Amino acid sequence: MKRCIRNPLITIEDVKPSREGLRVEGIFNCGVCQYQDEILLVCRVSESAGFTSQSVKIPIMVQNGSNMAMNVVEVVKAEHPEWDFSDSRSVRQKTPHGIKTVYLTSFSHLRLARSRDGINFTVSDSPMVQPVLKEESWGMEDPRVTRVGDTYYINYTAVSPQGPATALLSTKNFVDFKHCGVIFAPENKDVVIFPEKFGDLFYALNRPVSEAFGTPEMWICESPDMIHWGNQRHFCSVSGNRWESGRIGGGAVPFRTEKGWIEFYHAADENNRYCIGAMLLEANHPEKILARTENPVFEPEIGYETSGFFGDAVFTCGCYQNSNKIVLYYGAADDKICRVDFTLEEIYRSLKL
Amino acid sequence: MKRCIRNPLITIEDVKPSREGLRVEGIFNCGVCQYQDEILLVCRVSESAGFTSQSVKIPIMVQNGSNMAMNVVEVVKAEHPEWDFSDSRSVRQKTPHGIKTVYLTSFSHLRLARSRDGINFTVSDSPMVQPVLKEESWGMEDPRVTRVGDTYYINYTAVSPQGPATALLSTKNFVDFKHCGVIFAPENKDVVIFPEKFGDLFYALNRPVSEAFGTPEMWICESPDMIHWGNQRHFCSVSGNRWESGRIGGGAVPFRTEKGWIEFYHAADENNRYCIGAMLLEANHPEKILARTENPVFEPEIGYETSGFFGDAVFTCGCYQNSNKIVLYYGAADDKICRVDFTLEEIYRSLKL
Repeated sequence: MKRCIRNPLITIEDVKPSREGLRVEGIFNCGVCQYQDEILLVCRVSESAGFTSQSVKIPIMVQNGSNMAMNVVEVVKAEHPEWDFSDSRSVRQKTPHGIKTVYLTSFSHLRLARSRDGINFTVSDSPMVQPVLKEESWGMEDPRVTRVGDTYYINYTAVSPQGPATALLSTKNFVDFKHCGVIFAPENKDVVIFPEKFGDLFYALNRPVSEAFGTPEMWICESPDMIHWGNQRHFCSVSGNRWESGRIGGGAVPFRTEKGWIEFYHAADENNRYCIGAMLLEANHPEKILARTENPVFEPEIGYETSGFFGDAVFTCGCYQNSNKIVLYYGAADDKICRVDFTLEEIYRSLKL
Repeated sequence: MKRCIRNPLITIEDVKPSREGLRVEGIFNCGVCQYQDEILLVCRVSESAGFTSQSVKIPIMVQNGSNMAMNVVEVVKAEHPEWDFSDSRSVRQKTPHGIKTVYLTSFSHLRLARSRDGINFTVSDSPMVQPVLKEESWGMEDPRVTRVGDTYYINYTAVSPQGPATALLSTKNFVDFKHCGVIFAPENKDVVIFPEKFGDLFYALNRPVSEAFGTPEMWICESPDMIHWGNQRHFCSVSGNRWESGRIGGGAVPFRTEKGWIEFYHAADENNRYCIGAMLLEANHPEKILARTENPVFEPEIGYETSGFFGDAVFTCGCYQNSNKIVLYYGAADDKICRVDFTLEEIYRSLKL
């Protein structure tokens, strides 16, 4: 396992705000693909509208006729003594049902970054797509890219006041995009779609969260067309290991090896320290887990991973394979993009294969 | 609006326990359909395994080879001072994420009741189907029946330690059933499927609940085949009216009238008092709400509705139309089945049409 010596590869310094009045807070969790002779990253860019000790400005999208337009809501802290402003990511409130988010302090959009060598990236000056759904009026987050033939499917977390859901885009050229709507109702994110059909069906891992009871864990489901999904089955529980005791969910889009599918997944402990684990799934029956790492294959250790917008977090949405090498991109501390390379043998060893 | 003078039509006195050692606690929320020359109710029957002041016996299903078998877990209260036993329906625990259910005190299954006149029902001696999924190991609840041609689709809440999800059965004769798996991952229940296609697609209302934020509200989605669902859109918010301030969700399967689709939905206030409202949806575009009742069309008032296993609750899963009359069946206080008849004109009037 080898972190890129050029890490962090992309930081907020490299990103132009998407509009006047917004400040870039992070460029992180990115989907990954090879397109023509380039490595493309579909990055999550988060932006805030500014805050002082007295108030927070909240950027949200509102319906404006048939379009969506950005609106900034100023929340004066003294007017809401019942709200909790201590978390940099959200304004929260205690309710009979637990602690709930009232507002997110930043708005995320998707932004393309391109590279020929996988190290030197050029970040586009503007968002890859604009929000079009009411269900993404609080942002678009954590994209994953799955290539099937010449089509690239991009699923992402569509956030709205109703909670985090998962929506889908498709494109053949990264210029024209088709909006395919919300594929999983809230609360469901950390979706990874396999790049092949099994029989007549696509498969996806997803991570529903129930308010009533249960732990945030991984499910698997099927689709004939990428748009409509069913046959949801509980797939994988949190283990007894401390590093993954809080929650687990999909990470990188799975890739096929001679031993089966490798899935890099994310896990958090009770203190919200985010690590990456790996599992091996049966080649023709990806609902069967053949092996799973006892320890993280990757965890936050370096300053750029332990410190940032939200520290102690490494989080991957994608990787690509280059012969025997797996190049994994990850968000570090929710504000920068980094790279780490594994050999297949290293991954097999950590899975005790 | 006229309550049946024979209410309650079905009570626990009419139901044989599904197995030795279980006690019937309720027969309530039932799907409704006309089959041959009978009215069929697919009822939810809840059973407990007994409790004393010192302990609660929890009935759950566990995997036994490829089958599921009932297992009774005895929970001694003194051993769990951190658990809350005050709610008759569940054992709960305070967590950093709010109050969570640790166990349900009863296990629900689906049971058929048959009638020729819609008033005198005969309840089957045994469950209609056995649980087969790990995702329903805590029970099968709140069925709705949608007829399409000669096929009856029965969706129900599949409960497991991962939360309440929605699963689907189909049958042509109420003897042989096809298990179609989980169609919506947790937390998502109160699903009603329209009995017609719109273009090439079926439509369903569903009620996802997000842990992170948002209010339990209704969404609408589409399917080519009843099994795989997508294009989820937020459909309807709670109104400012007190009786529906806590949560809303689907109720009866919608039925077509000359003015559009009528949906009887359920709503609860902050005190968990459950009422029934109505809305009118556009005939060919059921995602468009044309009218909605300002006040409940039906609310708990009579002793058998205000008192029971869970009092102050009327909850419908289905109705049938008999010329100008709508016959609505409902669960009263979570332990009995009752009937109320409306004329179409009454419903139109409450919708101010």
